[in-house]
Amino acid sequence: MKISLVRNVLEANERIARENKRLFDETGVLVINLMSGPGAGKTSLLERTIEALKDKIRIGVVEGDIQTSKDGERIASLNIPVVQINTDGACHLDGNMVKETLQHFTLKDLDLLVVENVGNLVCPAEFNIGEDFKVMLLSVTEGEDKPEKYPLMFMESKVLLINKIDLLPYLDVSLEGIKQAAKRVNSDLMIIEVSCKTGEGLETWYDWLLNRVSEKSKLYKKS
Amino acid sequence: MKISLVRNVLEANERIARENKRLFDETGVLVINLMSGPGAGKTSLLERTIEALKDKIRIGVVEGDIQTSKDGERIASLNIPVVQINTDGACHLDGNMVKETLQHFTLKDLDLLVVENVGNLVCPAEFNIGEDFKVMLLSVTEGEDKPEKYPLMFMESKVLLINKIDLLPYLDVSLEGIKQAAKRVNSDLMIIEVSCKTGEGLETWYDWLLNRVSEKSKLYKKS
Repeated sequence: MKISLVRNVLEANERIARENKRLFDETGVLVINLMSGPGAGKTSLLERTIEALKDKIRIGVVEGDIQTSKDGERIASLNIPVVQINTDGACHLDGNMVKETLQHFTLKDLDLLVVENVGNLVCPAEFNIGEDFKVMLLSVTEGEDKPEKYPLMFMESKVLLINKIDLLPYLDVSLEGIKQAAKRVNSDLMIIEVSCKTGEGLETWYDWLLNRVSEKSKLYKKS
Repeated sequence: MKISLVRNVLEANERIARENKRLFDETGVLVINLMSGPGAGKTSLLERTIEALKDKIRIGVVEGDIQTSKDGERIASLNIPVVQINTDGACHLDGNMVKETLQHFTLKDLDLLVVENVGNLVCPAEFNIGEDFKVMLLSVTEGEDKPEKYPLMFMESKVLLINKIDLLPYLDVSLEGIKQAAKRVNSDLMIIEVSCKTGEGLETWYDWLLNRVSEKSKLYKKS
């Protein structure tokens, strides 16, 4: 009985995620589902990305947190549209939670919508929300064994941003070791090494993101 | 229907957890449920703790991971009994998973059983496993906002070990800020600042643990 209900929940989520995706395609907005464990730097990455790109593309953000609106407030201070979801205990965002936020955006006036998921290296990867791409962060402080211990998120993601590389001199961790472990789990994964503190490596991320926005806009945007 | 099933699952778990607890009490073994987000240093803490205490008390370990037996192998190399659970996707340990491991230990010959949960700052806190105490780690690299964004684990834990304090000089994070946030969520929380790399602060943790082992042994141990 437990298993069949889980299957129903996942099937219902898939249906809602597909509806979300259709809406995102009709309005030509690129949607990124941004995931990581707690404290890997999702909100810092978003702040950097918004500051760098907000004069080039129109960005909206959905902030997912179990409690508090701290992250939503950080993003709102950058003067872009943001909706905070509080899951009130739930460990991930699902298609329906994201759907509920969409009435608060004018999607056709956005080029990019980033959904910052709950900080959790496990559960968010199981639930599609209608995104174009899943993108994940891993902090170098989390160690080399994470891709193989938590494989699903690495398998589901298109891009892995390895963050906090400025701390490498102070850690007993090998950047090469992290990358090799990630590639063993997902050989197609695009890996970008960054520091949201120093800005190192972020240009590569911005370029990837702008190219995807441009592609989606050409494919789907109404004139 | 979803909610009632979740309640049933939690109720069933509570029943099994109580059975585990009765067994732990009958055999006088202190059981710690060790929790944190991914990469905060649970296994490193365990290695240090085992090395420091294994000549004083008899220790066993249950290692919970979604996949791989990497952590179990690290612990087994220290020549103490260890059982690896692979949850195969599940984001937390529950009472039944722990119960299944107990046949592999001679509980009456143990003073301390540490159950290292899946690396996840959310879900493990919802499931009792029959432990005497929940103990959690937070790495200073995870930032000051975690207690208020992920309150349940901080509320459920008896001890918070703040790890990786050796990295503080390289981070824009306030140790005092983390502690104040944790105390706002749980004013009774015992906080110990440690570095599993340098060993700083670990004596306080060892003392706390030895005192709890001693108390439990006196209360429950058969002669």
